[in-house]
Amino acid sequence: MAHHVNFCVLFFATAVHLVQTVPRIVDLSYKQNRDSVTWPSNPSYNFTQLFRGYSETYKLWLENNHFAMPEHMGTHIDAPVHTVKGMWRTDQIPMENLYGAGVIINVKSKAATNPDYRVTVDDLLMWEEKYGEMPRRAVAIMNSGWSSKYPNKTLVFGSPEPTDISTLHFPSWHEDAVTWLINKRQINAVGVDTPSTDYGMSSTYPCHTLLGKNSVVGIENVANLDNVPESGSTIYIPVLNIADGSGGPARVFATYDDEPNKTNAAAMVTCFTFYLYILAAVLVCYVM
Amino acid sequence: MAHHVNFCVLFFATAVHLVQTVPRIVDLSYKQNRDSVTWPSNPSYNFTQLFRGYSETYKLWLENNHFAMPEHMGTHIDAPVHTVKGMWRTDQIPMENLYGAGVIINVKSKAATNPDYRVTVDDLLMWEEKYGEMPRRAVAIMNSGWSSKYPNKTLVFGSPEPTDISTLHFPSWHEDAVTWLINKRQINAVGVDTPSTDYGMSSTYPCHTLLGKNSVVGIENVANLDNVPESGSTIYIPVLNIADGSGGPARVFATYDDEPNKTNAAAMVTCFTFYLYILAAVLVCYVM
Ligand SMILES: [Zn+2]
Ligand SMILES: [Zn+2]
Repeated sequence: MAHHVNFCVLFFATAVHLVQTVPRIVDLSYKQNRDSVTWPSNPSYNFTQLFRGYSETYKLWLENNHFAMPEHMGTHIDAPVHTVKGMWRTDQIPMENLYGAGVIINVKSKAATNPDYRVTVDDLLMWEEKYGEMPRRAVAIMNSGWSSKYPNKTLVFGSPEPTDISTLHFPSWHEDAVTWLINKRQINAVGVDTPSTDYGMSSTYPCHTLLGKNSVVGIENVANLDNVPESGSTIYIPVLNIADGSGGPARVFATYDDEPNKTNAAAMVTCFTFYLYILAAVLVCYVM
Repeated sequence: MAHHVNFCVLFFATAVHLVQTVPRIVDLSYKQNRDSVTWPSNPSYNFTQLFRGYSETYKLWLENNHFAMPEHMGTHIDAPVHTVKGMWRTDQIPMENLYGAGVIINVKSKAATNPDYRVTVDDLLMWEEKYGEMPRRAVAIMNSGWSSKYPNKTLVFGSPEPTDISTLHFPSWHEDAVTWLINKRQINAVGVDTPSTDYGMSSTYPCHTLLGKNSVVGIENVANLDNVPESGSTIYIPVLNIADGSGGPARVFATYDDEPNKTNAAAMVTCFTFYLYILAAVLVCYVM
């Protein structure tokens, strides 16, 4: 009898451990400040102190500021309406479309030698070979290594004249890969660690059009991708809910279990322990 | 032998189910627009269309806007420096302090009859009696029912003259309850569904001071609290990362397992099934 109670306790302890695993959290966003990167034609960031000092009104220290910015600045999203008429504005995007399983496509070595690199269907298949089929409604983000250039505009836009959009060179997605993510994997959101979901040389913006038409959220200027596992995280895109917006800044972040393999290992050990217990119990029965 | 394999399979199936449960997501933020509620002395929200229409430059539809606002507007956080000199500014708050177990303190019936109600230590003890001891580093939010008044300023501030701060009436936290949360439960963040973590009648702001001094994030104008379970959720406070900020708008949201009770029930059923299996196995041994 005591043994059976032990089984029970052991099982419960493991179950509770599995449920209560606290996820780690990783910031995938840049700070917003006067250096924030935005598309060449946009106005710049503005920050004004409303009050900083001891307040005679409130009889305490007080800091209070005002800020102003274009929606498409720093780490931000493109709502589907950004480039496709009639699609979701920022405040129309359901919460369910602002998170999903994290799929990080590492093309750092390719982008290091080719600033015009575009993520291919082959890159996606290679990811699946390594990690298994992508979950549906995932958030796929290119890690090109470009974040090391942020916020230097000449480097980020890959041009000595970053205000001239005909001179830009930075990596992003190929339209065939975006089509594959939409049609084969019902992707929720597609992101880049560069300034646009179309590569710098594009003058036709096919990825923007594909994403917008298919109600897929775009994410631009994502940071810190080296700090997230390529598979196994959940990525959240909590955009500021700007009424009537075409996008907006988002404090993008990822969560993941600290030691997912250890959790699986613990479950296996527990299962094996059960097995041994039961074998032992049966043996004891035969002996007695 | 076949039975032992069954145990194993059953255990694994349950363990995998527990791990793979996809969380539900609930938006706890208001849209930002011209009606956004802010403290009386602050400037109002501004939204400007930069472009809306067919773009001859890009040969596609284009929407692009600019917005401007005070940091403390709508659903937003107070960084510790907001009222205590030298404490964390917005961009100094670690990600680990921007999420935690959700603790919703329901005082709707009390606040309905008393607009000057303040959450007491007793309210916290009653929560613990129902749901068990609070996890450490939690996010505790008062649900006063006040969100039904948002964004009507007369109703939200409980005053026919909401610009006169000596006339305000709305519920919030009592400083004793905040002290208890800080000292006894190492709270990460303390929030309200009203405009301030100090109640409307306050002229000394003890809760702001306590929170700031102890590096606890404040959250104001939280929405939709009726849609989150009072216990068992995780609440995220992904504030816009404003460099040098005293707070900022945040797309606050909660995640929770769709059917946590069902999950627990499944674990108990599985445990009981194990128990029966083992009893049966032992009985079979004796009979043979
Ligand atoms: Zn954009
Ligand atoms: Zn505030």
